[in-house]
Amino acid sequence: MVQIKTKRERIKFASDNVTGACPEVLDAILKSNDDDKTPYGNDKLSINLKDKFSEIFEKEVIVFPAASGTAANALALSTITPSFGNIYCHRLSHINVDECGAPEFYTGGAKLINLNGINGKIMAAELDNSISGKGIVHHTQPSSVSISQLCETGVTYKLDEIKNISDVAHKHNLSIHMDGARFANALVSLNCSPAEMTWKSGIDVLSFGATKNGCLAAEAIIFFKSELVGNMPFLMKRAGHLLSKMRFVSAQLDAYITNDVWLKNAKHANAMGKKLSQGLQLHKSIELAYPTEANEVFVKIPKYLIDQLNSHGYKINDDEWEDKAVRLVAAWNTNPSDIDSFLNIIKS
Amino acid sequence: MVQIKTKRERIKFASDNVTGACPEVLDAILKSNDDDKTPYGNDKLSINLKDKFSEIFEKEVIVFPAASGTAANALALSTITPSFGNIYCHRLSHINVDECGAPEFYTGGAKLINLNGINGKIMAAELDNSISGKGIVHHTQPSSVSISQLCETGVTYKLDEIKNISDVAHKHNLSIHMDGARFANALVSLNCSPAEMTWKSGIDVLSFGATKNGCLAAEAIIFFKSELVGNMPFLMKRAGHLLSKMRFVSAQLDAYITNDVWLKNAKHANAMGKKLSQGLQLHKSIELAYPTEANEVFVKIPKYLIDQLNSHGYKINDDEWEDKAVRLVAAWNTNPSDIDSFLNIIKS
Amino acid sequence: MVQIKTKRERIKFASDNVTGACPEVLDAILKSNDDDKTPYGNDKLSINLKDKFSEIFEKEVIVFPAASGTAANALALSTITPSFGNIYCHRLSHINVDECGAPEFYTGGAKLINLNGINGKIMAAELDNSISGKGIVHHTQPSSVSISQLCETGVTYKLDEIKNISDVAHKHNLSIHMDGARFANALVSLNCSPAEMTWKSGIDVLSFGATKNGCLAAEAIIFFKSELVGNMPFLMKRAGHLLSKMRFVSAQLDAYITNDVWLKNAKHANAMGKKLSQGLQLHKSIELAYPTEANEVFVKIPKYLIDQLNSHGYKINDDEWEDKAVRLVAAWNTNPSDIDSFLNIIKS
Amino acid sequence: MVQIKTKRERIKFASDNVTGACPEVLDAILKSNDDDKTPYGNDKLSINLKDKFSEIFEKEVIVFPAASGTAANALALSTITPSFGNIYCHRLSHINVDECGAPEFYTGGAKLINLNGINGKIMAAELDNSISGKGIVHHTQPSSVSISQLCETGVTYKLDEIKNISDVAHKHNLSIHMDGARFANALVSLNCSPAEMTWKSGIDVLSFGATKNGCLAAEAIIFFKSELVGNMPFLMKRAGHLLSKMRFVSAQLDAYITNDVWLKNAKHANAMGKKLSQGLQLHKSIELAYPTEANEVFVKIPKYLIDQLNSHGYKINDDEWEDKAVRLVAAWNTNPSDIDSFLNIIKS
Repeated sequence: MVQIKTKRERIKFASDNVTGACPEVLDAILKSNDDDKTPYGNDKLSINLKDKFSEIFEKEVIVFPAASGTAANALALSTITPSFGNIYCHRLSHINVDECGAPEFYTGGAKLINLNGINGKIMAAELDNSISGKGIVHHTQPSSVSISQLCETGVTYKLDEIKNISDVAHKHNLSIHMDGARFANALVSLNCSPAEMTWKSGIDVLSFGATKNGCLAAEAIIFFKSELVGNMPFLMKRAGHLLSKMRFVSAQLDAYITNDVWLKNAKHANAMGKKLSQGLQLHKSIELAYPTEANEVFVKIPKYLIDQLNSHGYKINDDEWEDKAVRLVAAWNTNPSDIDSFLNIIKS
Repeated sequence: MVQIKTKRERIKFASDNVTGACPEVLDAILKSNDDDKTPYGNDKLSINLKDKFSEIFEKEVIVFPAASGTAANALALSTITPSFGNIYCHRLSHINVDECGAPEFYTGGAKLINLNGINGKIMAAELDNSISGKGIVHHTQPSSVSISQLCETGVTYKLDEIKNISDVAHKHNLSIHMDGARFANALVSLNCSPAEMTWKSGIDVLSFGATKNGCLAAEAIIFFKSELVGNMPFLMKRAGHLLSKMRFVSAQLDAYITNDVWLKNAKHANAMGKKLSQGLQLHKSIELAYPTEANEVFVKIPKYLIDQLNSHGYKINDDEWEDKAVRLVAAWNTNPSDIDSFLNIIKS
Repeated sequence: MVQIKTKRERIKFASDNVTGACPEVLDAILKSNDDDKTPYGNDKLSINLKDKFSEIFEKEVIVFPAASGTAANALALSTITPSFGNIYCHRLSHINVDECGAPEFYTGGAKLINLNGINGKIMAAELDNSISGKGIVHHTQPSSVSISQLCETGVTYKLDEIKNISDVAHKHNLSIHMDGARFANALVSLNCSPAEMTWKSGIDVLSFGATKNGCLAAEAIIFFKSELVGNMPFLMKRAGHLLSKMRFVSAQLDAYITNDVWLKNAKHANAMGKKLSQGLQLHKSIELAYPTEANEVFVKIPKYLIDQLNSHGYKINDDEWEDKAVRLVAAWNTNPSDIDSFLNIIKS
Repeated sequence: MVQIKTKRERIKFASDNVTGACPEVLDAILKSNDDDKTPYGNDKLSINLKDKFSEIFEKEVIVFPAASGTAANALALSTITPSFGNIYCHRLSHINVDECGAPEFYTGGAKLINLNGINGKIMAAELDNSISGKGIVHHTQPSSVSISQLCETGVTYKLDEIKNISDVAHKHNLSIHMDGARFANALVSLNCSPAEMTWKSGIDVLSFGATKNGCLAAEAIIFFKSELVGNMPFLMKRAGHLLSKMRFVSAQLDAYITNDVWLKNAKHANAMGKKLSQGLQLHKSIELAYPTEANEVFVKIPKYLIDQLNSHGYKINDDEWEDKAVRLVAAWNTNPSDIDSFLNIIKS
């Protein structure tokens, strides 16, 4: 039926959070449902996550499953930032513009210091220059840094960039958080190990995203330094984020990181991103706003082409992103044919 | 294998949150997974919840799906209680003793005024006497009342009791919230309509529980007065409780309230509760701490019997509840044979 | 003029905060005004407070001047209580019922656990029994204890009572705060040293009150353990309690604790309290509600006598205090003749 | 004695908060001390402030005395900004950089959106462009605007500039606050009426500063729209800013606005500012960073001259202000000879 088809296409590429869960994750939920289990994360699956993630990160880590990325970010930041603290982040960062002030709520009123960066990425030198006022009672106190990997323009921080930023943070005694909503996509793009992209490059706390890349609602807060965990269990509970049937979140995470499901999904999404990006670049009036390094494609598309796409059911808005770029996101479930259909519209 | 059996039995009756999801809910999740959908509660299923719940409650309601009961309670209370407000509740209430201060966190520091009540239930007269200080700047301000239905002793508020409490609340210009973590069990026990147990008895806001009675992680905040909704959408987002794939929560709720699944589950759980209660009362050294009106059984069991049960793998703790009563909870998935096994141990 | 006289009498004995400043304190303000001084507590007078108070308390203390008792209490409690913490206090305590939730605001939502005590005083045994739930994520966490000296019924905690309560607090790893709004009155009543009434009896942090006993607006937060100071300077500033011309608060405190001004004022107030109490007890229909140990007199007065007093301009309200007792407070500036006038009315 | 003289000079011009109170204000404190008075702002003087300020502002206003400017700003902003709100302000504004996050604390986590402006002043057009995201749940919500008059570069907003900014604010349904820490200095500089500089130009709430211009510790929060007052009395009390002997703050304010004391003080301070500015400009290597419109002088002074001044006991720091400008502040008590002494050092 035409209508249904149109409707379906409409949100394709809108984001990777329009997708459902991948089969492996769904199976894990079904399997976890078989029997009664201890609530509040005291079931075997939840408890075992620590070892599983420690293996993946080649280091003993401490893991807290969470149901949303906003919760993971805000809870993580609240353990490394006092109420009177500064969180240094890119002005475009999700924590700054897309979480309705969650970091402020969870920290009790910390201040997000906006950095301009380049191409959506914080620059170590700008960060270094921005950190000031330590110990002066009139000023909110430099406390933490947060970077997004993938960052908000779809590009990756390279390992040495992460290292340089972490070094600046640590030089000033700040902790550093990585918002890894698209952690797997970045990892696959950099072709490095999870350890290399995090604690080996100086990251202290990670929001490990899984929802966008094949789960229903599953993220993990991962601490690489146990001394930073602080009062996390109480803060989670107090925020209503300690689910009674936590095992279902844990089951998702467990399946996601087992047998490289997460990497497989991300590789596919990135490949689809590349295919879409290359197809778009063939069009002479379309130009990339940022390089396509993973599954997000930022392009500048002339108004008449946007209108053409939207007349076919897409809902593309060139006012949502910086410099009127349009964001298109490939996902673990994107079909090559989805891309072909999309490209065909602007070819014709 | 004996060990697995022992382990399984261990948590039977520990709570109704040790269960998984019922088949109808699980099916709904699978079905919802088929296709890409608009995120953040803007999918069709989520949007339709308003009409579905309005039908069930015979009134136009406003619905916010949530993933945990603590979140539902705290968010609901935060819209009807300012930071300097008083929330009147039973001293044993879940919001007071089992949510690690979530209402305080979400309201920005409201005060929970503990009422003694009788058998775990607030009494209208005690509430009336406790409300004071309105308009005096030195005192935190009477703002809201919260009752649990089922309450924390497993008994139900009768319709006239709810009405009397609501009348006191409204007389003082307070709003009244119902923590319906076991809403269906209470409803089935009272054999009345959802409307009668809520807004027709004066309830303003409801935490509609579904997780314990057959969902994975699904609750709903239901407003019976639109003027109380306030800034809920922003408060939810800010708290990390607006899930991107909200449709999966909505799918659970939708299946749960369709074809009387919720009532069927609750009826079964209550019947099992009654069977368990009756079986226990046959034992001459066991006495009920509170009447068994739904699926929760509170009994005083002699130490040697507790030891006997625990030696069979149960983990019963007589220190957890008021007056050393033991709480046993039947659920939608309790088998009569589960009860027989349990009772057999203390018979022998 | 009669009218003025009536008006003046009206608030006599209403509280010790209806008084102005004593001459020594007023002189100090005038003297401090002579010259430009470094702001924000970096003037000589402010800096020297540490040494002056250390001498008085026979121990190196850390001092923060504050302009209100509510601020002193709430700030002090916020350094020893996390947002998910419990503060154990008497149900009648000022922090619980007369500060509009300031401790909740400053701690970010801590819970005040109400103890019944006896005669307005916490009992060590009840405290001990009330502390529970430590380490369990569902429960707010036992964190601090607060006692008022004078307590809210005008009686003093004896040294061994303080010691016993502190011992319980420390046994459970809780910190203990003393609300010393009427510290001097209690001290003079007990006839002990400031050290004995505080850290030698186990007190960790003190709100040292001075406003009621001869200052305009001057209190001090005094830490007996430097490791508890935490982020106090930032929290004060952030709350707007770091006054730019802090020297005027410091000047008051300095004059107050110099040459035993504070003790002289308190001795007088207590003597006037005793005179008033004795005079009232001569009346056969008046009985003491609590023993008069310092400058506060709690009496039960028949309605016709209250009416008689109020017809002479007093504004006595027997609904404000526990058990319909009436509170009358003598102050540093109470004249014996004020008492005689008051007593004469009920004699006639 | 030379040393004392040096010490005194050291802080001259450091700020106008190094000064004491002017004689009229000091007299008022002494006078207010004569008698017992009703506490918590219920004394006659406090109550009458409403009428006095209403007369001055040619409009019925609502007044809350406060002891610090930070408290006045943060409390005012908290009534017009929800926890998830945006406060638009200049990046250099006091509320943004010099209050250790007080607005965030009082609002429960609002976000201060930094505007670049020109010369320290917000531009209406930039403000207009910055306001976005209204109604979108992912974004913190545009709620209020705050401007400083004098602003942080010592210049004044002209009446039409205030009007234009207010118009933008109101067009977007935002409320607008004026931080009037140096309200009198700005007023005298503009030579307009208090009404013209505030509500006639669209201002909704004002922090009326008095401490810097002749009081000890006295500010006032002034609402020009009663519907914005909200829960201010409770918020003040809860923050420990409702002083029991509030009459002393009120006495200061009363004396300050009586007989044009405030205007007289400000005129003198501005004249001294002008004298200092003109004297400095005579030096060929000194240039003004911003025009001297009131009592603050921002100049760029070569390093060797700063060293020379500091060797005479001044403590000038060219790292504290934007672009290495040096800030020198004249006050109500600045003597022409103070300026001559200062200028003589760099002449020689």
